[in-house]
Amino acid sequence: MDERLPGYKGLALKLLLDAGAEIGDLVRIIKDDVVLEGILIPRSEYGDERHITIKIRSGYNIGVEVTPSTRIERVSPETKPAFIPPQPPEQKPGLPKVSILGTGGTIASRVDYRTGAVRPVMSASELYSIVPELADIAVIETEMLFNILSEDMTPKYWSIMAEAVARHIRSGVQGVVIAHGTDTMGYSAAALSFALQNLPVPVILVGAQRSGDRPSSDAALNLIGAVTAASRAPFAEVSVAMHETTSDESIILHRGTKVRKCHTSRRDAFKTINATPLARVIGDKIFMLTDEYRPRDSNRELILKPNFDERAALIKFYPGIRPELIDWLVSGGYRGIVLEGTGLGHVCRECFPAIKRAIDRGVVIAMASQCIWGRVNMNVYSTGRDLLAMGVVPLGDMLPETALVKMMWCLAQTSDPEEVKRLLLTNVAGEISQRTVEYIEPPKTVVGRADGN
Amino acid sequence: MDERLPGYKGLALKLLLDAGAEIGDLVRIIKDDVVLEGILIPRSEYGDERHITIKIRSGYNIGVEVTPSTRIERVSPETKPAFIPPQPPEQKPGLPKVSILGTGGTIASRVDYRTGAVRPVMSASELYSIVPELADIAVIETEMLFNILSEDMTPKYWSIMAEAVARHIRSGVQGVVIAHGTDTMGYSAAALSFALQNLPVPVILVGAQRSGDRPSSDAALNLIGAVTAASRAPFAEVSVAMHETTSDESIILHRGTKVRKCHTSRRDAFKTINATPLARVIGDKIFMLTDEYRPRDSNRELILKPNFDERAALIKFYPGIRPELIDWLVSGGYRGIVLEGTGLGHVCRECFPAIKRAIDRGVVIAMASQCIWGRVNMNVYSTGRDLLAMGVVPLGDMLPETALVKMMWCLAQTSDPEEVKRLLLTNVAGEISQRTVEYIEPPKTVVGRADGN
Repeated sequence: MDERLPGYKGLALKLLLDAGAEIGDLVRIIKDDVVLEGILIPRSEYGDERHITIKIRSGYNIGVEVTPSTRIERVSPETKPAFIPPQPPEQKPGLPKVSILGTGGTIASRVDYRTGAVRPVMSASELYSIVPELADIAVIETEMLFNILSEDMTPKYWSIMAEAVARHIRSGVQGVVIAHGTDTMGYSAAALSFALQNLPVPVILVGAQRSGDRPSSDAALNLIGAVTAASRAPFAEVSVAMHETTSDESIILHRGTKVRKCHTSRRDAFKTINATPLARVIGDKIFMLTDEYRPRDSNRELILKPNFDERAALIKFYPGIRPELIDWLVSGGYRGIVLEGTGLGHVCRECFPAIKRAIDRGVVIAMASQCIWGRVNMNVYSTGRDLLAMGVVPLGDMLPETALVKMMWCLAQTSDPEEVKRLLLTNVAGEISQRTVEYIEPPKTVVGRADGN
Repeated sequence: MDERLPGYKGLALKLLLDAGAEIGDLVRIIKDDVVLEGILIPRSEYGDERHITIKIRSGYNIGVEVTPSTRIERVSPETKPAFIPPQPPEQKPGLPKVSILGTGGTIASRVDYRTGAVRPVMSASELYSIVPELADIAVIETEMLFNILSEDMTPKYWSIMAEAVARHIRSGVQGVVIAHGTDTMGYSAAALSFALQNLPVPVILVGAQRSGDRPSSDAALNLIGAVTAASRAPFAEVSVAMHETTSDESIILHRGTKVRKCHTSRRDAFKTINATPLARVIGDKIFMLTDEYRPRDSNRELILKPNFDERAALIKFYPGIRPELIDWLVSGGYRGIVLEGTGLGHVCRECFPAIKRAIDRGVVIAMASQCIWGRVNMNVYSTGRDLLAMGVVPLGDMLPETALVKMMWCLAQTSDPEEVKRLLLTNVAGEISQRTVEYIEPPKTVVGRADGN
């Protein structure tokens, strides 16, 4: 190891040392007939001795396998100067007050080419340096809550976020924006939807699929849309603000319990599932897309229920799954299991005894569908009817991810499994849509619920 | 219990006996101000004493809670006569030969109102009685392989299906159709794609979202589309034939490794993910939608690799997941784990030691994305780079469900983890699409693979 070349060892280290290359330099790798150029970046400590990682001009990192005959040339020294944030623009005191809370993730980051680390950019002055337009929308206060990649998010962080949002709302802001990594932003949006009840003002989660130093970054526009919504939107709900399409025309606001990341890389990765999005932001205008929302009301008293019980699991069913998995969870002290079943809410009959044992021991078992779109209906086939009869809770059109979050939240509200089941079936934050009848004209006399078995 | 009223007990049984009602009768339930009418159907053996299940006019089953003041009236006796299949139409010997293999599921069913059981309809004459048009398309031979609900499908059934398809193909048919329940049809389509290599003729899986005795049934049109494709399509691949939209205009053929059930109930529930569907059938015409397919060639020699190793698991990652789950799988003898990670292919850093322990013990760990759309790219963030460096296999744009099936198949081909990894990264049956570059113009000199770390 060489401290100028973190992560490099063996042959890769030798070639780089011979070339006099350091992290941040523009290097050229010549390998047989292939020539690659890019900025040398550090490697993982788990890495092997045969690869060099460079950031190519498009912004992507690639790993290049080297052999003893590979040649490395140092084209030019570190090209990126240290980042010096410009002075923030002047605050305009007549504007609404909005808090921006930082949690880490792409939107709050610049890649530091020297260390390869993702570096938070969340002081007010640094944020303004990226998006000075924010000063024309609101008087911004920022707070860095923590700085993690969103795949490292846990229910404990949901509680910290909920408590921080409550604190900022009680200080009298017109709205709160949370900058969040996109990987688990859907889960966090659901968590805040349950934890922050009776909201007086909007709480907008916002992310970016490309970091701010990439030409195709969506960070600035998403943030402008989020702050616009936080300061002036007519609704007081938890929502997610991201690009509506791959173009920069509009930002769409998804209800926190109905949103899911549905693409690994596109800027319009987030989609509202089984519902209509809340609103659209185009420029400085906000267009509501539904009449069904809680209106903004600064006098409303926020109710904070920030706790989650992590003794809950999400199990995606698949052919060949072993029922012992359920027994293992039960013996490990889990109190709730969300099954991501097939179709209308099914798992194989071989799992029935394990499910029955779990329920008999007071574990709450609930059913969502891995189809993602549509709703579970466990009255159509005998499999579903038997599961209902055992006490499995049908979750309607709730997303599996939202269902897991809700299970953790319900388990923290009560120790009584029957009360957990009742809460799961209660629409707390728009997570269960009104029943949509797509194909049938129900007979006039029918008022029963299909999942009322 | 009363044998004329299976599943009914307590108050529900008493009310039905008082009314003289039997299974299959049209009954009226009068409850306060509400009147419900429907066909009385049997209840689950796990059921309680307070519900009566009826099939309402739309075809849906609903559970109605009864109280001592509820009144039941028997409106009319069993209305459905026993099903008498008509004579099959005459075979037309000049037509292509197609085998239809039955496995169970909605498409092969009629609900028997007497017993409530789903009853297979898979003899040639019964099939023709539902869809006599088939006799104008092909000379049909049918075989009932087994009769299960598709949520009860396991890898052992995939092997039985693959072997049966091979037998029928070797007997000289122009194509094979497999009638399959929709819940796990995507998994089975992937399984057959890996098990049946070098196919000479098409193998078409077909399902129905509504059973054949429902007015909105999609069974007939899907089956006609499937038999049309099996008899005359220019490709020789495993594919899934279902409604393209909610209208009856077209049947779409999805490649077996790229298809997923994306809605619980819609007739167009199946979608091709991260690729173009293979073909569209409108009436008797087949329109290819891609140039990239294996052409039909009756002289090609089928290679059958029907085995799957069930010691593989699919784990959907979520915030708060316990790494001990991975350790438990490893100690339980699992040989492969597909992680359904977040975003570009991430799991929390807390899982890293367990992943490392698993890999050190020869367990193959592979990564797909729960986003479903897009592809994993584990070179962008340090989380991905560290996972790659540990030996986690990045699965490109492979669906998580297909990835699990492929893992089971690869594990059955070799006992060497390195060979399993090599096979996972090899495009066997169109499961990995060519790299799609959506946003960047890569520099001319770059030929490295982003996942080549």
